[in-house]
Amino acid sequence: MLFSDEEYRARLAGVRQRMGRQGLSALLVTDPANIYYLTGYNAWSFYTPQAVFVPAEGQMLLFTRAMDAGGAFRTAWLPPDCISGYPEQYVHQPHIHPFDWVAGSLRDRGLVAAAAGGCVGLEMDSHFFSPKAYRALLHALPEWTLVDSFEVVNWVRSVKSPAEIELMRKAASVCGAAMQAAVDTIAAGVRQCDAAAAISQAQIAGSDGVDGDYPAIVPMLPTGEAADTPHLTWSADRFEEGQAVVIELAGAHRRYHAPLARTVSLGRAPDRLARLADAVAEGLDAVLGEVRPGVAVRDLAKAWNRTLARHGMEKPSRIGYSIGVGYPPDWGEHTISIRTEDETVLAENMTFHLIGGMWMDRYGYELSESIRVTSDGVEAFTRFPRELLQKGR
Amino acid sequence: MLFSDEEYRARLAGVRQRMGRQGLSALLVTDPANIYYLTGYNAWSFYTPQAVFVPAEGQMLLFTRAMDAGGAFRTAWLPPDCISGYPEQYVHQPHIHPFDWVAGSLRDRGLVAAAAGGCVGLEMDSHFFSPKAYRALLHALPEWTLVDSFEVVNWVRSVKSPAEIELMRKAASVCGAAMQAAVDTIAAGVRQCDAAAAISQAQIAGSDGVDGDYPAIVPMLPTGEAADTPHLTWSADRFEEGQAVVIELAGAHRRYHAPLARTVSLGRAPDRLARLADAVAEGLDAVLGEVRPGVAVRDLAKAWNRTLARHGMEKPSRIGYSIGVGYPPDWGEHTISIRTEDETVLAENMTFHLIGGMWMDRYGYELSESIRVTSDGVEAFTRFPRELLQKGR
Repeated sequence: MLFSDEEYRARLAGVRQRMGRQGLSALLVTDPANIYYLTGYNAWSFYTPQAVFVPAEGQMLLFTRAMDAGGAFRTAWLPPDCISGYPEQYVHQPHIHPFDWVAGSLRDRGLVAAAAGGCVGLEMDSHFFSPKAYRALLHALPEWTLVDSFEVVNWVRSVKSPAEIELMRKAASVCGAAMQAAVDTIAAGVRQCDAAAAISQAQIAGSDGVDGDYPAIVPMLPTGEAADTPHLTWSADRFEEGQAVVIELAGAHRRYHAPLARTVSLGRAPDRLARLADAVAEGLDAVLGEVRPGVAVRDLAKAWNRTLARHGMEKPSRIGYSIGVGYPPDWGEHTISIRTEDETVLAENMTFHLIGGMWMDRYGYELSESIRVTSDGVEAFTRFPRELLQKGR
Repeated sequence: MLFSDEEYRARLAGVRQRMGRQGLSALLVTDPANIYYLTGYNAWSFYTPQAVFVPAEGQMLLFTRAMDAGGAFRTAWLPPDCISGYPEQYVHQPHIHPFDWVAGSLRDRGLVAAAAGGCVGLEMDSHFFSPKAYRALLHALPEWTLVDSFEVVNWVRSVKSPAEIELMRKAASVCGAAMQAAVDTIAAGVRQCDAAAAISQAQIAGSDGVDGDYPAIVPMLPTGEAADTPHLTWSADRFEEGQAVVIELAGAHRRYHAPLARTVSLGRAPDRLARLADAVAEGLDAVLGEVRPGVAVRDLAKAWNRTLARHGMEKPSRIGYSIGVGYPPDWGEHTISIRTEDETVLAENMTFHLIGGMWMDRYGYELSESIRVTSDGVEAFTRFPRELLQKGR
């Protein structure tokens, strides 16, 4: 296993403590990142339904498709009799659902009555937990009171252990190699797909003996006028002299992520882009200068807003979010968003992707850092020049 | 646009015809593959809620996060006033959901009453449509009768147009290059991650002038004893002489997929693996020999079962599924499964991944083809030796 027994036990204890506070007698975990966090189970099997049942007391149970139970035996921190595969005939059927079987299995194991004493938490907004799955549980387990768990496992994940920080540092080393591959490859005349191929190669091969894992998001390369929107992937178009290319990518190692965004100008950057880059750099510096335990997340957002306002600019979207374990389609933890409405207070070993992404009228700019809150300040995971990168000027 | 106006109109007409048969006065499409199929919108933005509203008559409407609306203007076959971005403050909040805003926008546009005359279809089992999103619609639109659309768009997608077939042939050319990269790289002493990196590079760079897109699933390389389960991804372990490596990957081009599985033995294959490979090859040949319009899918499954039974074997899982457009986490269309319970009858230009995947006790084997049903038989998209590949024997 990647983590010690003690660490897995501490994670489970942390989840149960929060469950108790929320009045949950059991929890059904469906987010693959949460399943990995609690059990270590790791495979590309989340396109069919999966769940971990977490009772207030007793063993966790992992449910997967039957053909994936073998992978679970190999990778999960659970005894084999706590791993259960549902039969193939439940897959992709209009009128039955794997969670019908999961509910029946929980009943057969005598676990339904114990959980009926309180509310049972569901991850109501996790990817891969569908309304059909939800209704299967509603109908099969009428004695349960099903409630939103409000990302209870995600919140436990928000403060990292030393072992997790070590994995994120390794992810950051992969990230640096991938960003270097991007900057080295992107040039006038090169196809966007060839740059993305070089980035992906570096992301997976890794660097300095650290193997790369697949990032939860593919490399994004909004280019030229299309850089006014953040999530376009590559095309076969060739980069052109004078274009700016926004690069957003992550290094991943054992499912832990360190994302990073930089912008490359092919040739001298136009004045408006250079001015934007200066404002964003100043804003990011202002935010980094505020990071330490005890500071409210909203104060980071305010520091950013103040700086941008001095430049006559504003950013309607959040400037960062909690990071760690990620599976497609997102490397964010779905908990803390760095914006003025967020009430979270920073604690040591929280980790964030701080991203100054500005999408203007037919141009755009991104500059980011993956960071850790230290005992008295901030650690940037990556060491890549924090500036607008100009090539061949 | 990638397809003609006529093709997009025909897709919409096909969906509306099925909607009529199912009594649907409107449909809310949330599967990114279905959104792409109907509108052309293509970005890695599906980690926040998105939807296309398809009324029985009138314009389709696309809803995305505000920052993604710019990408939608660039890529979608819709007039700009039919693209609507919800405000950033709806993202990742515990007590409000973007679909609260979507429901309000439909009401403001006067579209709720018209759809209340029939049932409104929802993609109840699509990835990225969460129970929280479903409950937001339930509460905000009490005059609507919400029902399962039972993959209505997916079913329209199951028969491809000539333009789509052409894209799948290009995806197959990418696939061939990626499989060749896998076979060339995998050797005793090489790290699994380095093979995956070479595969990914080839998948994205493409081949013969065809640019590669990101496949919906990363390369899977179950190796040695772990090949008894299908969905494990790579590690940093080094391949060893005598191991068999299962390779499952796809070529993708403009979101269309051609998947392929092969197994490489590093050195002479042990007898049990060679016998398994013979049985699977014979089974796959038997299936391919049956493929033509008018044949029931279940008869393909029976041909497979008969062949395997002669070898004293059986396979509990489906031997194939419909393919085409795909987004992570799946390149399958979530409609036709090639198994004895499926009642579908083959039609020209249906496309499948036929996969003989056998997960035994501490070894495994996969052999597959991506195929098209022609007017009188079958076309294999890829031309890769259909056999157990033995290296350095």
